[in-house]
Amino acid sequence: MADPVITFLSDYGLQDEFVGVCHGVIARICPRARVIDLSHGIPRHDARAGAAILADALPFAPVGVHLAVVDPGVGSARRAVALQLADDRVLVGPDNGLLAPAAAAGGGITEAVDIGGSRFALKPVSATFHGRDIFAPVAAAIAAGAALAEAGDPLDPGRLVSLALDEPRVRDGAVIAHVRHVDGFGNLQLNAGPQQVPELQPGGVVRLELPGGRIQLAPYLRTFADADEGEVLLYEDAQHRLAIAIRHGDAAAALGVKRDDELRIRPA
Amino acid sequence: MADPVITFLSDYGLQDEFVGVCHGVIARICPRARVIDLSHGIPRHDARAGAAILADALPFAPVGVHLAVVDPGVGSARRAVALQLADDRVLVGPDNGLLAPAAAAGGGITEAVDIGGSRFALKPVSATFHGRDIFAPVAAAIAAGAALAEAGDPLDPGRLVSLALDEPRVRDGAVIAHVRHVDGFGNLQLNAGPQQVPELQPGGVVRLELPGGRIQLAPYLRTFADADEGEVLLYEDAQHRLAIAIRHGDAAAALGVKRDDELRIRPA
Amino acid sequence: MADPVITFLSDYGLQDEFVGVCHGVIARICPRARVIDLSHGIPRHDARAGAAILADALPFAPVGVHLAVVDPGVGSARRAVALQLADDRVLVGPDNGLLAPAAAAGGGITEAVDIGGSRFALKPVSATFHGRDIFAPVAAAIAAGAALAEAGDPLDPGRLVSLALDEPRVRDGAVIAHVRHVDGFGNLQLNAGPQQVPELQPGGVVRLELPGGRIQLAPYLRTFADADEGEVLLYEDAQHRLAIAIRHGDAAAALGVKRDDELRIRPA
Repeated sequence: MADPVITFLSDYGLQDEFVGVCHGVIARICPRARVIDLSHGIPRHDARAGAAILADALPFAPVGVHLAVVDPGVGSARRAVALQLADDRVLVGPDNGLLAPAAAAGGGITEAVDIGGSRFALKPVSATFHGRDIFAPVAAAIAAGAALAEAGDPLDPGRLVSLALDEPRVRDGAVIAHVRHVDGFGNLQLNAGPQQVPELQPGGVVRLELPGGRIQLAPYLRTFADADEGEVLLYEDAQHRLAIAIRHGDAAAALGVKRDDELRIRPA
Repeated sequence: MADPVITFLSDYGLQDEFVGVCHGVIARICPRARVIDLSHGIPRHDARAGAAILADALPFAPVGVHLAVVDPGVGSARRAVALQLADDRVLVGPDNGLLAPAAAAGGGITEAVDIGGSRFALKPVSATFHGRDIFAPVAAAIAAGAALAEAGDPLDPGRLVSLALDEPRVRDGAVIAHVRHVDGFGNLQLNAGPQQVPELQPGGVVRLELPGGRIQLAPYLRTFADADEGEVLLYEDAQHRLAIAIRHGDAAAALGVKRDDELRIRPA
Repeated sequence: MADPVITFLSDYGLQDEFVGVCHGVIARICPRARVIDLSHGIPRHDARAGAAILADALPFAPVGVHLAVVDPGVGSARRAVALQLADDRVLVGPDNGLLAPAAAAGGGITEAVDIGGSRFALKPVSATFHGRDIFAPVAAAIAAGAALAEAGDPLDPGRLVSLALDEPRVRDGAVIAHVRHVDGFGNLQLNAGPQQVPELQPGGVVRLELPGGRIQLAPYLRTFADADEGEVLLYEDAQHRLAIAIRHGDAAAALGVKRDDELRIRPA
């Protein structure tokens, strides 16, 4: 039988030992688990950024237990939860919206438990490191075979915190989109797909209206290599969303655009 | 039988290939080993910082072989050692104090060997990368089943370099503490626990005397979420030590405090 | 039977989820694979830097499938390839020179296939993330037992893009060398070994002619610890190449030297 898989996403970064300690906790409880670090570079405390990355990444990971910790409310009254999805994945993390888009993408929640007082938690539970004391040990126990019902108290999925990522709109022939994600290279992922921009043609030029009313013209190309050095381009990224990049450059810095900023796109 | 576990802590960082090469060396010698990276973000050459992190992290890791490399004296006369602890863990690293607090926390050393000339070392041994050439291969050989006595020459544990982390003192009703660790978010961990501050009450206010005589008042709270945005707080951290943070901020930068700095704490 | 090993080197960095997503893809296709991250800190788009690191690191890794992605031409006409080496290793990556030095070090290529249209690729193949869609799944399929011939179309190894790293020359009693690699600490690795510098003696002093004609004298020492704090030293590094460092300092920054810069070395 294949070893169980736990994926792990957080805003802990890799400078400190937080991620390593959680790996240790998992290995004590479920030595056979294979842990895949999806990313620990989520911007600190930014549950919406984490939610977008998690939902996009999970389809590429094996079905398993999916641990996610971006938790500005650690130690407060926010719930800690484990969620069984229709597609057999189990999500474990704080109930602050971080898990919501991934749960929807996984066919919805078939069972939810509140793990704040889980019997699998490390005791005593600290007030500031629930990744170590609650989320990692519960994820490991489930990966080792525990039923969700053993891990916590039943919870109505309808009571979970929801998080809706922005949807694009079309107005006056332009798509009004938002920056969904800025990656480490400064590429700007929008929340719109190419099918949502009227008359978008490969090789055609679009007019981007940036925050503050600034206008940027850009060709719609297949890939970076089709642009000239330093050129701004629009392209369909690997998640099938529109994105803006500068070949061999940092679009976020050069264009002064950041996550959640609104842009308008229309054919030039 | 469960796969053997090797934990790995260093100041190598993750920009270069040093950590990856050590993983490769381990996998060649002990293919079944599961390697847990505790942290590679120890400040460069700072054996005291590494010692504090290692001692705190090990209780959360499975019993195994614990490789630690923060080694400013690589290639010099400093010893390379493997240490059997009373709690069954084996520590492998340079004899510069890095391993000392973890050894004490593990019940003390029952057997020590000098691995500078170990038969398990890669030959030729370079003068500058003992992580690859001595520490990783010896750790892997022990994880694969070699006895400590095969790995090096017997050594009197009493001859090992000691490293004492500062202890807090109480004077004139104040606790004189030191900053034991600054994490990547700028949180300041002190070397004192809450039981060492007289009259410390949840929700009460303390008076912090910072370096240079600056005074900072701060509430003693359970967790970040109990503070206001930007507020300085004192709290008990996940290692049961007092720590100073700024909610959604960087306390080290804002307060101008760094590791080893002395602070005085008293009820306000 | 031991689990198959896949090593993974890229310029993706660890801030984003790119590396984690590739790990997920591998685990879905070859759950038993052990993935060793050699480095994800190759300077972005710098295939020559990646080629040098890969060739140096592979001898320390188990024989397996070696995935390498530094791919400024992703989505363009550049080929994607898998290469069987004489030493039993298989390399998978873009055909832009990244794999060439490692292939030569592994005894040369005995079989090559073009995997641009591989049946193992994820469909649809994006234009910008071939690490996820082509390279990782092909590497995983080969690790799981697929023959190279199943992974792509036969390709004449002689048609592969070559990449020659600079070789040092001797002129007028001086070695003319280039900076092959700058590590994260600012140490400058040269492309010359100690045997190439006439009259080089341990403890002797050399005269370094830096870019712009600046002269720096430096002792030739065994290791950092033999230098004084802040002193510039020449030493033989762990790859048996000459390197320049500053004890407890950053030689690249202090000396204003960067990769590919030319230096002349002669006895002082």
